[in-house]
Amino acid sequence: MDQQRFVIEASEAESMASDSGLTLIQLLPSLVKSAQSLARPPISNYHVGAIGFGSSGRIFLGVNLEFPGLPLHHSVHAEQFLVTNLSINAEPHLDYLVVSAAPCGHCRQFLQEIRGAQNIKLLITSDGHDKFNTLSHFLSHRFGPDDLLDKEVPLLLEPHHNGLSFLREILILSNGICNGYSSQVDDKLKIEALEAANKSHAPYSGSPSGVALMDNEGKIYKGSYMESAAYNPSLGPVQAALVAYVAGGGGDYHKIVAAALVEKHGALVKQEQTAKLLLQSISPNCEFNAFHCSSASVALDNCKKA
Amino acid sequence: MDQQRFVIEASEAESMASDSGLTLIQLLPSLVKSAQSLARPPISNYHVGAIGFGSSGRIFLGVNLEFPGLPLHHSVHAEQFLVTNLSINAEPHLDYLVVSAAPCGHCRQFLQEIRGAQNIKLLITSDGHDKFNTLSHFLSHRFGPDDLLDKEVPLLLEPHHNGLSFLREILILSNGICNGYSSQVDDKLKIEALEAANKSHAPYSGSPSGVALMDNEGKIYKGSYMESAAYNPSLGPVQAALVAYVAGGGGDYHKIVAAALVEKHGALVKQEQTAKLLLQSISPNCEFNAFHCSSASVALDNCKKA
Ligand SMILES: [Zn+2]
Ligand SMILES: [Zn+2]
Repeated sequence: MDQQRFVIEASEAESMASDSGLTLIQLLPSLVKSAQSLARPPISNYHVGAIGFGSSGRIFLGVNLEFPGLPLHHSVHAEQFLVTNLSINAEPHLDYLVVSAAPCGHCRQFLQEIRGAQNIKLLITSDGHDKFNTLSHFLSHRFGPDDLLDKEVPLLLEPHHNGLSFLREILILSNGICNGYSSQVDDKLKIEALEAANKSHAPYSGSPSGVALMDNEGKIYKGSYMESAAYNPSLGPVQAALVAYVAGGGGDYHKIVAAALVEKHGALVKQEQTAKLLLQSISPNCEFNAFHCSSASVALDNCKKA
Repeated sequence: MDQQRFVIEASEAESMASDSGLTLIQLLPSLVKSAQSLARPPISNYHVGAIGFGSSGRIFLGVNLEFPGLPLHHSVHAEQFLVTNLSINAEPHLDYLVVSAAPCGHCRQFLQEIRGAQNIKLLITSDGHDKFNTLSHFLSHRFGPDDLLDKEVPLLLEPHHNGLSFLREILILSNGICNGYSSQVDDKLKIEALEAANKSHAPYSGSPSGVALMDNEGKIYKGSYMESAAYNPSLGPVQAALVAYVAGGGGDYHKIVAAALVEKHGALVKQEQTAKLLLQSISPNCEFNAFHCSSASVALDNCKKA
């Protein structure tokens, strides 16, 4: 298997399993070590690997990312990377999850954003046995989306259409770090970031956002902000785009040359300054632009009246 | 009971209990509602209250804080507020915890920084019954300090002496927003922030930090950065100082007129830019100074060799 691949197609997964005389579910733990080798944890040097099996039959990899010189909340855990990887690839559901170490509480909470999360089957390979337990066993009496949202509100991995647009032309362009790129490139990145913002899962704050990154070969990677009912475990839009970058074969972060953030004008949750801080830190020469757009629908209508 | 008080002395707690014909532990759930009324959650309007009983016999309150206009990771949950309140008041241990809603995974993880965390007794009042369960029931098969630290390393609520000082004179003063205060005030705040940094729990990154805030009456509030083994649930030094501010009777955040941050020169984890972002957001006229000091001991020596 190619070391740099973060998605294994269903047909290939089936042949890998049958070649090894294993079932698909038995195959999953054997992939954890190769995932660990793809982690980028320069602070802890603690390499975490996560393997997910989706309802489409595909297998997904997740690894942890850390960013020196910034507060630790910028870190992306392997389980969050994995869920983002599923989301980028429009996988409808996560059925099985195998991780190299016990998932932390932050990740157990983030996973609650998936519908039916309590029934996801989880195995920790460092335990040394091969018994799956449900996520409800690992986070009993959870706090979750049910506590805050109506049942019909889409959860993570379900389709989102946030209705953001630049149509009303209240565009405010700000904080370009430098201006080495043509406005055509800017326009393309902006539209990709808008698309990511429209897929963002932000039902709690009503503040969706998205980021598009471009590398020095012109390849674009995008990520959507993903909110947690518990607020703090939410994954920022730059983090989501960096998952796309790493999973999409992006190399050193220095190769990121341009970035666009789209978020709502006057939003309750604003990503701009924090997005800039992270991008400046990992890729000092990246051109960063933030765009503020309007929205037809107000996602806060999703929330239960307390 | 005075609505604004966040610590109840042991003797007073005993009389409150005996006046109500309750044991001390039975008294705890009855205090949750008044704690909830002290919460400051302008984004969610979801008021969370936490009551803790310490080994000294004192009772502590915790509430949630939210900060509009910034990413949600700035939020302080009631359980984190409570633990910070214990730390500020040099409480050696948390024995019982009562909360108004199911603690999120992020908080269950943060609580693991307390020695013997698995045995903390937890009750959720919204459950409608009065049975305590151990924290290990709510976060089974935890990831925690044991996974990364040697046993002799001090945990949260245990004494810390980080050995930071300004002796080597590599002081770099930066980012004063304005300069309305005398250098005497600056010196006092700096020394208080250094003291907070020396009590910081940062064994994972070796990057302790502390913040001191001053209100418009000259009263000082300080807080120490507190790290989590799982990184993301770590509580920033400004957040810790804001807990001291709220618990200490501080009113509107606009009354904060000056702030000092002390952290290590060249640290792996740097709070400065993020601290400034939060303070500028809640208190635009606050003078903010960051000081970078040297350390005799390198806390990373604490870490297990993997
Ligand atoms: Zn985690
Ligand atoms: Zn919480």
